[in-house]
Amino acid sequence: MSGDVTSRAWAYLSRVAEPPHALLAALVDQVGPVEAADRVRRGAVAPELAQHTEARREIDAAADDLELLARRGGRLITPDDLEWPGLAFAAFDGRGTPKKPDHRPPLVLWALGPARLDQVAERAAAIVGTRAATAYGELVAADLAAGLTERDVAVVSGGAYGIDGAAHRATLAADGTTVAVLAGGIDIAYPAGHSALLHRIGCYGLLLTEYPPGVRPVRYRFLTRNRLVAALAGATVVVEAGLRSGAANTAAWARQLGRPVAAVPGPVTSAASVGCHALLRERADLVTRADEVVELMGRVGELAAEPARPATPLDGLSLAERQVYEALPGRGLATVDQIAVASGLAPAQVFGPLALLEVAGLAQRREAGWGIVRGARKLV
Amino acid sequence: MSGDVTSRAWAYLSRVAEPPHALLAALVDQVGPVEAADRVRRGAVAPELAQHTEARREIDAAADDLELLARRGGRLITPDDLEWPGLAFAAFDGRGTPKKPDHRPPLVLWALGPARLDQVAERAAAIVGTRAATAYGELVAADLAAGLTERDVAVVSGGAYGIDGAAHRATLAADGTTVAVLAGGIDIAYPAGHSALLHRIGCYGLLLTEYPPGVRPVRYRFLTRNRLVAALAGATVVVEAGLRSGAANTAAWARQLGRPVAAVPGPVTSAASVGCHALLRERADLVTRADEVVELMGRVGELAAEPARPATPLDGLSLAERQVYEALPGRGLATVDQIAVASGLAPAQVFGPLALLEVAGLAQRREAGWGIVRGARKLV
Repeated sequence: MSGDVTSRAWAYLSRVAEPPHALLAALVDQVGPVEAADRVRRGAVAPELAQHTEARREIDAAADDLELLARRGGRLITPDDLEWPGLAFAAFDGRGTPKKPDHRPPLVLWALGPARLDQVAERAAAIVGTRAATAYGELVAADLAAGLTERDVAVVSGGAYGIDGAAHRATLAADGTTVAVLAGGIDIAYPAGHSALLHRIGCYGLLLTEYPPGVRPVRYRFLTRNRLVAALAGATVVVEAGLRSGAANTAAWARQLGRPVAAVPGPVTSAASVGCHALLRERADLVTRADEVVELMGRVGELAAEPARPATPLDGLSLAERQVYEALPGRGLATVDQIAVASGLAPAQVFGPLALLEVAGLAQRREAGWGIVRGARKLV
Repeated sequence: MSGDVTSRAWAYLSRVAEPPHALLAALVDQVGPVEAADRVRRGAVAPELAQHTEARREIDAAADDLELLARRGGRLITPDDLEWPGLAFAAFDGRGTPKKPDHRPPLVLWALGPARLDQVAERAAAIVGTRAATAYGELVAADLAAGLTERDVAVVSGGAYGIDGAAHRATLAADGTTVAVLAGGIDIAYPAGHSALLHRIGCYGLLLTEYPPGVRPVRYRFLTRNRLVAALAGATVVVEAGLRSGAANTAAWARQLGRPVAAVPGPVTSAASVGCHALLRERADLVTRADEVVELMGRVGELAAEPARPATPLDGLSLAERQVYEALPGRGLATVDQIAVASGLAPAQVFGPLALLEVAGLAQRREAGWGIVRGARKLV
């Protein structure tokens, strides 16, 4: 059998639920991949996860999958590996409740190619765009890719016809590093007309997917895949796009992840540039050359700064602390019981937040109760 | 002698110092045009103004100038006239110390044409750009001008070759109102190749200049003229411009006057769009159509229509419904279990989505299983 127990567990988990799966990821975090795989296989998991894994839990293709991968010279990249681009994927964390169920890092990545993913993610830009590209769009994509390669920036894209293909090809031609993130198994050459190109990317760059072998790329997987393109790139550049396009979806992911989104303008008479102009009207950065993209990427290995917000003393308060703060009367004082009623918290839960607010200079204790510190309120 | 005393005073003042002249304007404000003209003529003014009017104070062509204007059917528009676009020129006031000596309204305007300047200035956009326009640029300028005309917006420009000419011409062709602000006397057809066009603008729109008859347009007068183009327009649109161009100067004037500046994108491979892209990178508004210009002009209730997005039958499906839809085979039928495996959903979770897809006409139930409805797939 191919692969050690741990690898087989990861491979099994990769297939058993449609990735990314929050409950499955949480289980793996909790008990590790081997135990998680075992529990899923036995159906010994929480009802919702059991339901989501019911259809595939008895399919164990892990050994075969790993053998296929090994035969092609590929590898499974897991969060335990040095190659795991943790910093890039950290963009999925710590931003409150995700808006979409797939706002998550991948569980594992199936990879093929000599490029090291962690190194790629340190300095990469995504070049994406419509399959229905014009000659102009393909020229610009190729120019940008060549320019980025000159500046030691890896080019990430989705392997599709049109802009993606032009970017990959130009990067290969310039001896640069290009990464194609696939929406299906690593053994599925999609689109078929790009099988030679994808093969070359696997030889000289990196083919990457969170889907196990044999999985067909379908529409929602393209959309889910796009988040990885955005996450691995320091900036996402849309070269040409119609109004409804996968590229606009990748741009939306980049924005959600706090990464710069850029678009290349084109003739307003060209339907292939309509999506770019829409992005630019929504304040994407206009780029015309590779060095403008590099400028946008900012400092290597760092998350793009959150859009600047005026700092207030309330930044960094917990929810309970905010609730208590907001429950303080605008004028005068309130007792702990009154604060509890106004905040909806139990009286016992109010003391801790009040103490913290006092230390922070936001609230003050008087004999008759608690009040806000004037002046601090204005900053809110 | 042509004109009354006051008109002759204005005409005299218009020529005696290079306009706009702050000291001369101040004197007129103080003592009125007739007394101001008299004092200048006698040299009875402050030393600096005396110096600046010394060269021309003995030239009194006022009567001849007014006669020439009358013969052509023109008029002198002064701050005393109802037609004076006071609101448009108010943008020159109240903004602290002007950065440039010509940051001032004109003293008077020499005008020729049926359009009323005050009405024009209430609803006008400037379309400006390079003389070295491409066919693309001229096409877009003409499209914008025709679109603005449709929306009852007057088109202001500078009468030059290239973008300006295309904008004027298209406005005339659409029976709209177009204003050419000249950098020389109203009797000087410049550029010579546009004498027929300028004549038509004088017949159907408005020719406008702060220079008295016979004054030649020279470089600094073009730059000074540009401020009037910007001031008369609710928004300034640069269609094509090189990096150093008069259009960029007009845009700078618009910005100084607090008016929106917009630019039309073009191919990044076109030198004629470089100036537009530079403006867009400096946060000019990107426009592609006339209604976006109108929106910028800030009339209430005139938000540009959202470009229509192609709708697909899959819009509005939930994730599970999409997963089930994609799990249906391209040809033939699949059982519920097969669909469950392909989609990663539990069999029990597949029924609901299948029923909905059937209702939506996307899936059909047969005895042997479920299949897609042909034709619907194509729309995805």
